Amino acid sequence: MTYDDIIAARARLAGQAVVTPMLNVPQIDAIAGRRVLVKAECLQRTGSFKFRGAWNRISAMSDAERGRGVVASSSGNHAQGVALSCKILDVPATIVMPSDAPETKVDATRAYGADIVFYDRMTEDRYAISLGLAEERGAILVPPFDDPFVIAGQGTCGLEIAKQTRELGVDQGTMLTCCGGGGLSSGIALALERDAPELRVRPVEPVGFEDFGRSLAEGKRLSNDGAGVSVQDAILTPKPGKLTFSVGKRLFGPGLAVSDEDALRAMSLAWQWLKIVLEPGGATALAAALFQGEALDEGPVIVTASGGNVDPAMFARALGAV
Amino acid sequence: MTYDDIIAARARLAGQAVVTPMLNVPQIDAIAGRRVLVKAECLQRTGSFKFRGAWNRISAMSDAERGRGVVASSSGNHAQGVALSCKILDVPATIVMPSDAPETKVDATRAYGADIVFYDRMTEDRYAISLGLAEERGAILVPPFDDPFVIAGQGTCGLEIAKQTRELGVDQGTMLTCCGGGGLSSGIALALERDAPELRVRPVEPVGFEDFGRSLAEGKRLSNDGAGVSVQDAILTPKPGKLTFSVGKRLFGPGLAVSDEDALRAMSLAWQWLKIVLEPGGATALAAALFQGEALDEGPVIVTASGGNVDPAMFARALGAV
Repeated sequence: MTYDDIIAARARLAGQAVVTPMLNVPQIDAIAGRRVLVKAECLQRTGSFKFRGAWNRISAMSDAERGRGVVASSSGNHAQGVALSCKILDVPATIVMPSDAPETKVDATRAYGADIVFYDRMTEDRYAISLGLAEERGAILVPPFDDPFVIAGQGTCGLEIAKQTRELGVDQGTMLTCCGGGGLSSGIALALERDAPELRVRPVEPVGFEDFGRSLAEGKRLSNDGAGVSVQDAILTPKPGKLTFSVGKRLFGPGLAVSDEDALRAMSLAWQWLKIVLEPGGATALAAALFQGEALDEGPVIVTASGGNVDPAMFARALGAV
Repeated sequence: MTYDDIIAARARLAGQAVVTPMLNVPQIDAIAGRRVLVKAECLQRTGSFKFRGAWNRISAMSDAERGRGVVASSSGNHAQGVALSCKILDVPATIVMPSDAPETKVDATRAYGADIVFYDRMTEDRYAISLGLAEERGAILVPPFDDPFVIAGQGTCGLEIAKQTRELGVDQGTMLTCCGGGGLSSGIALALERDAPELRVRPVEPVGFEDFGRSLAEGKRLSNDGAGVSVQDAILTPKPGKLTFSVGKRLFGPGLAVSDEDALRAMSLAWQWLKIVLEPGGATALAAALFQGEALDEGPVIVTASGGNVDPAMFARALGAV
């Protein structure tokens, strides 16, 4: 899992993934009190960055592997990335989703032709269910983050960030990433290590789900207690991945945590000024840039606006939040 | 007003305007029953394409002209384009806006530092008010559409469209433009005439405001009766411009008209699948692509998603429309 793997991923993704724009508007800068560059991954295919990693993993499979089919578990963004990749490559897909996943994510995943199996997020272990299904069906598990191909795929976002920030005259600053299991964060960090070493990644998580931040502080992988609830559904993970944490330990700065209220406010401000649609867990990094400036080093901030798959009712709630 | 003016405009706009992305998602294609490429001008600075023309006009002024200041009339998008250009170039700006302009547009225009003068859209003539103010203040009028610099500035959007469609393998098809006075439509048509001659521009207007479509059909400039109402505020103009109509007469195909209901439905679908924020008058062309396919030639359609400046209440209304 090196920089070269990310370069290889970029070649696989060429012509498939969108090179998403880097947005910057004065109104957001004014609220944050600094320059804020927004990597609009909500404009990626399937509405989140997850298509990158899924495509990189599945398109790298042999014909024999593809014939076996794929199993993945996801609250909805990885699900769509896997489902669309499988649809394009004609690979059978089974997706394990929590029964409380946003309707829009379930509908989109189904529309890409995937077979969906629901589980109860409070009482069942999605990893065990996925493993069981993979075994039963002879299929290949595509992990949501802790996989070299998946991390390298997400890392292509980092290659774009390095190029785009340079073009905008930014070569030093803080790179805030919406962080669940750490696939995007570690992929970006590996890309920036080579291409923009003065941009330091800091992972941003929902309050109550700061497993990555606490793990970084303690130097070892720690789990959340599982009691928390949050509307930032895309990035609610129990524990950092082994691979992602090994990258994070070496390359990440300290973590940050964002309340649901602030995530919703960031969604509303992204709607108003950036004209992009974000889901709560896709606005987490932007929220930290907007509302936690005192915790950041001076200088510009780059944020991932990682996803935009959200139900209308939640979006309307966000619009009422500012 | 030629292709070369658009090339000159592109040079002025370099580093100032955003090269906005061309979006394409399978769900929108499926609804339209054809390929739909969406030029996301809502991601332009100030949230609409209008920054292009305003910047091209104002940045081309001499120091003496800039010192006199600028007057413009607009329901809010041209207003913001002019106000931001003036702010950057340190030119005093007076903007004449209808008293029923969306609050978000008024607030943003004021935030760019412009002086705002309101008028009653039903009883007063904005052109006369603007002329009077320009005379009184010794300022220069920047027309919203019927001006060679403004048209050439909007035409830079057409240069990008020609390049982006070519990269996506599309060199033949219908180019649907959200059309008020015709600045964007005619600018794009002039650019495509040279760079993508097999893409034919067809202007799309709100039902009840089809002055351009009727004028094209009759071969002469006709006015609306002024009795209509529409939420597509960005493109409610009384009559085609002289310059824009002379271009349109030569280069446009027949016009189309979109109901408010369909514009709101298109906003909602753009929110859901494209993850962009559109205002009603910025979704007009997309609505025609989605819901009036029978009126279009076969083949791909390109649409301008021209603006995204909309009040939360209107947006929430759109989200409930599908």
